[in-house]
Amino acid sequence: MYRTHTCGELRAIHTGNQVTLAGWVQTVRKFGAITFVDLRDRYGITQLLFGEDLNKELEDSPLGREFVLQATGTVSERSNKNPNLPTGDIEIAISSYKILNKSAVPPFTIQDDTDGGDDLRMKYRYLDLRRNAVKRNLELRYAVNRAARNYLHNQGFMDIETPFLIKSTPEGARDFVVPSRMNPGQFYALPQSPQTFKQLLMVSGYDRYYQIVKCFRDEDLRADRQPEFTQIDCEMAFVEQEDILSMFEGLIKSIFKDVKGIDYTDTVERMTWEDAMWNFGNDKPDIRFGMKLLNLKKPGSVYTNKQGQSELIDGADFKVFDEAETVIAIAVPGCSEYSRKQTDELTEWVKRPQIGMKGLVFIKCNTDGTYKSSVDKFYSEEKLKAIADAAGAKAGDLVLILAGAEERTRKAVSELRLEMGKRLGLRKDDEFRLLWVLDFPLFEYDEEGNRWVARHHPFTSPKPAQIETMINNNPVIENAAEYLQHPYANIKANAYDMVLNGNEIGGGSIRIFQRELQEKMFAALGMDKEEQLHKFGFLLGAFEYGAPPHGGIAFGFDRLCSILGGSESIRDFIAFPKNNSGRDVMLDAPATIDEKQFEELQIKLNLK
Amino acid sequence: MYRTHTCGELRAIHTGNQVTLAGWVQTVRKFGAITFVDLRDRYGITQLLFGEDLNKELEDSPLGREFVLQATGTVSERSNKNPNLPTGDIEIAISSYKILNKSAVPPFTIQDDTDGGDDLRMKYRYLDLRRNAVKRNLELRYAVNRAARNYLHNQGFMDIETPFLIKSTPEGARDFVVPSRMNPGQFYALPQSPQTFKQLLMVSGYDRYYQIVKCFRDEDLRADRQPEFTQIDCEMAFVEQEDILSMFEGLIKSIFKDVKGIDYTDTVERMTWEDAMWNFGNDKPDIRFGMKLLNLKKPGSVYTNKQGQSELIDGADFKVFDEAETVIAIAVPGCSEYSRKQTDELTEWVKRPQIGMKGLVFIKCNTDGTYKSSVDKFYSEEKLKAIADAAGAKAGDLVLILAGAEERTRKAVSELRLEMGKRLGLRKDDEFRLLWVLDFPLFEYDEEGNRWVARHHPFTSPKPAQIETMINNNPVIENAAEYLQHPYANIKANAYDMVLNGNEIGGGSIRIFQRELQEKMFAALGMDKEEQLHKFGFLLGAFEYGAPPHGGIAFGFDRLCSILGGSESIRDFIAFPKNNSGRDVMLDAPATIDEKQFEELQIKLNLK
Repeated sequence: MYRTHTCGELRAIHTGNQVTLAGWVQTVRKFGAITFVDLRDRYGITQLLFGEDLNKELEDSPLGREFVLQATGTVSERSNKNPNLPTGDIEIAISSYKILNKSAVPPFTIQDDTDGGDDLRMKYRYLDLRRNAVKRNLELRYAVNRAARNYLHNQGFMDIETPFLIKSTPEGARDFVVPSRMNPGQFYALPQSPQTFKQLLMVSGYDRYYQIVKCFRDEDLRADRQPEFTQIDCEMAFVEQEDILSMFEGLIKSIFKDVKGIDYTDTVERMTWEDAMWNFGNDKPDIRFGMKLLNLKKPGSVYTNKQGQSELIDGADFKVFDEAETVIAIAVPGCSEYSRKQTDELTEWVKRPQIGMKGLVFIKCNTDGTYKSSVDKFYSEEKLKAIADAAGAKAGDLVLILAGAEERTRKAVSELRLEMGKRLGLRKDDEFRLLWVLDFPLFEYDEEGNRWVARHHPFTSPKPAQIETMINNNPVIENAAEYLQHPYANIKANAYDMVLNGNEIGGGSIRIFQRELQEKMFAALGMDKEEQLHKFGFLLGAFEYGAPPHGGIAFGFDRLCSILGGSESIRDFIAFPKNNSGRDVMLDAPATIDEKQFEELQIKLNLK
Repeated sequence: MYRTHTCGELRAIHTGNQVTLAGWVQTVRKFGAITFVDLRDRYGITQLLFGEDLNKELEDSPLGREFVLQATGTVSERSNKNPNLPTGDIEIAISSYKILNKSAVPPFTIQDDTDGGDDLRMKYRYLDLRRNAVKRNLELRYAVNRAARNYLHNQGFMDIETPFLIKSTPEGARDFVVPSRMNPGQFYALPQSPQTFKQLLMVSGYDRYYQIVKCFRDEDLRADRQPEFTQIDCEMAFVEQEDILSMFEGLIKSIFKDVKGIDYTDTVERMTWEDAMWNFGNDKPDIRFGMKLLNLKKPGSVYTNKQGQSELIDGADFKVFDEAETVIAIAVPGCSEYSRKQTDELTEWVKRPQIGMKGLVFIKCNTDGTYKSSVDKFYSEEKLKAIADAAGAKAGDLVLILAGAEERTRKAVSELRLEMGKRLGLRKDDEFRLLWVLDFPLFEYDEEGNRWVARHHPFTSPKPAQIETMINNNPVIENAAEYLQHPYANIKANAYDMVLNGNEIGGGSIRIFQRELQEKMFAALGMDKEEQLHKFGFLLGAFEYGAPPHGGIAFGFDRLCSILGGSESIRDFIAFPKNNSGRDVMLDAPATIDEKQFEELQIKLNLK
């Protein structure tokens, strides 16, 4: 027993108690003959008072920052209380102490605002983890873990562990592979997700499965991706989409409640993928604010006539709009009085290579009812008003318009919308808005291979009404230019994404559970029978023996935690993260291995 | 919604309710115009009654074993109740049904006693998992998982995830390695345990850590080992051995209570490693029964004189005993009347290659007070009585004696003791006896390298009183023949194993937390400075910045579950296990990988 109490535990009611604490020296302050030490542990900070009698000892063995100290003394009420500290009413009058371990001077300060840069903090991650800010993140992560398990347990889900050493079946992302010493020339793969195993468990009758589980993807890392990441992975049998949606709204609401104390009583909104793309320009809209996109050239909209011309903008001889594939406007609330400098800055913002637009058109909807625009030359005030009205602008708003190629422009307006939302404080860290995005396309077109790829994954079922379309048509695309006319182009998936504050936090689908349909899907993705059997023979086999209808979802656990913690970076919520090159700079891994390991594994390097 | 209730839910009180069930067809029984179907799901079995009106439909689309069925009808009380089934009071009078999926005839029966052999069951694991016996095992596993998490949570432990892609530092066992595509020529390793990470977390101040986590060891597989296995991994800071023992006795008792309903109120026994070896012949004694070993040549025992001679057996001219390095006896209760056939069979048993002894000596302690032995020629009845008394035999017991080389004999008697315990029914599946084995040697001698190896692992601390011995002596063994005289040979570890019914279910230690001592340990194991820094520089570095005293334990989760489930095999408690060649026969993994994968990873095969 190194301690009787923690450093966060003692209060005025303990006054007079003899106690022993152990922890780290946060600060040492000398006032004449007495010395104050703030002692820190996981639970808090307690002030220690070393009196005159300990002066000699303190001189012989002085205390330094981050020393590990065990100290015994009497709890006494402070004359000078610190209301900012839970233990601020007391201090410990120390009678004896022992330095359990010394510390070198840390390379950065162990404080909320540290002076350590990212690289230094990652190299000394064990010191970074001592900082309150990081500790709070890991505590939140554990709370989310606990809340998820409790909810799922109460709903009858069983945690069943699936294997990590499996078979390589690279579909979208690359597998990490593991050479097998006992089976020379053969490799295991690390799972990108337990997808096929959880489906097999459904075939086996475990109708509610979950796991909080590490997954692996060997991708070129973008800023906020990790080669290993954690999922809350769930699957249910004998369910339809509606059952899944309500079960997992419940999960997230339960996490809100347990972790953040938030009663999320609102109905979770739903939106089709198509609406999300038209109205927000992306498939994971942040619905904490409006500012919906108005696509002035949207075919079949009220603003386009039978000839497909946009009545709001056409005929004004403004070539930029006339020649653009698409023209999209958003109404930014309360910004009609933006100065020239401010609109110029916005123009520069959309011209940055990350956004890549050629320019920005604006309409100021002045509070006096007049309209002023950067394209006054081409459009009458009446026309400007019509456009602004269509975009939902009110007096005092600023309409921003981008024009260009469909995909790029849509993406750019979506980014601009998010940026304006952020600037106007409409994306509040402490406001949480959930959204289901539904009815995704089942397939995407792969130009390079002139074939279909699965938008979600190859196990996702089409909408029940479209199963026949899928079975009865040949997936081969005869005419690349007209791929949109292929019957497969319009098949919608029985899939759903859960979006929180503009982030996809989870996604899933109702699965295919009939062998014939699964084979058709594999064929559509360009797999011949032999390849299907080699890669997924076990699954096709399982579907022969009474597979029930089933579906599931997986939540990105790291991302969910970071959003709940109000941070952009998942790395802050992982105890030992890797950097953007997939390296653990603390361990210095990956690293070379011994010659003996190569020999045993019967592999060698083949460096380019 | 595919169902209103599960197949385990309905009772007589539901009579008259309209319900829909979904599940698998267990049996179909036709009686004239009516058909009974037992429908099975995860929760139970319910009897469905198909009346005459459905005859036509049943003929058109007949039901088969393992078909997936959705059926709607009215709950009605059975005239012929089945008291063996929780739902046995009712049946469902079916009004309509739908076959959700058909099933081919399964390759083995889905019943408690299946006709499927091991290989077939593993290949069709998804069908094997449907069997009640296997389902119960996975349910028990989940219950243990849940109980462990609840206890540890209530004790203030935090689940913190540690990385899976780490650095290869092969010590005892081999690492599985993972080639890094982004860092060509370099490899990650999969963790054999999160050992160094949990120690770093202690350095970081997270004083109570746990994780239920997969670990990986590339070993030649013995019958009951898996290349991937699960640990309950725990670590605490500011603790001594006693704190750990009481905390984790609590964990196991809590699991007993939650999972088995057992109040384990007994004090958990403790035994030194040395006593375990002398009295039971191994370091994980099954203490559900006695039958302790009497080593008749144990130096310094009451039965050996000052010259080191065994007074009980010497001087009788029985060369087998006189010339043996060791002679060990056990008293088997109540077996004095074994027939010649029975003692012969035991002799054959110890002569099998797995045991490898040359013969077996016995003494029958007859109930009439006489003694009869296979070595009557050499020993008087008085002598026989003295030996039997020393072995703790009573009238009616049978004393079994083996003689030979120390290690082999000790091991053989240990096996013989367990075998006799089993035959006599003294090793009851439903009796649980916990034991701490303490004071292990810190080092083992490696003859081949004439050096020390760590018995537990290189992070285990010596007993506090022996730290000086370790620091102040050179670990090099000058004279191989006298390695036992080296000061390191007698250093005891601050380590502990928890033993349940003769199985090591957990083990751990108080760790080294001072850089100097850790370096000395690495040096003792033959690592030079450079190798130390390359492999464990991060840990040595961490010890510079205020590492607290700490220690921990890891439980073998698979093994713990199998013992609680009363089974010898851990494979029965793993959803998707591998076979003895490390293969997943269902997936057919490991397997070859694509040429493209080799190219990207910049490795190639180098098959012998």
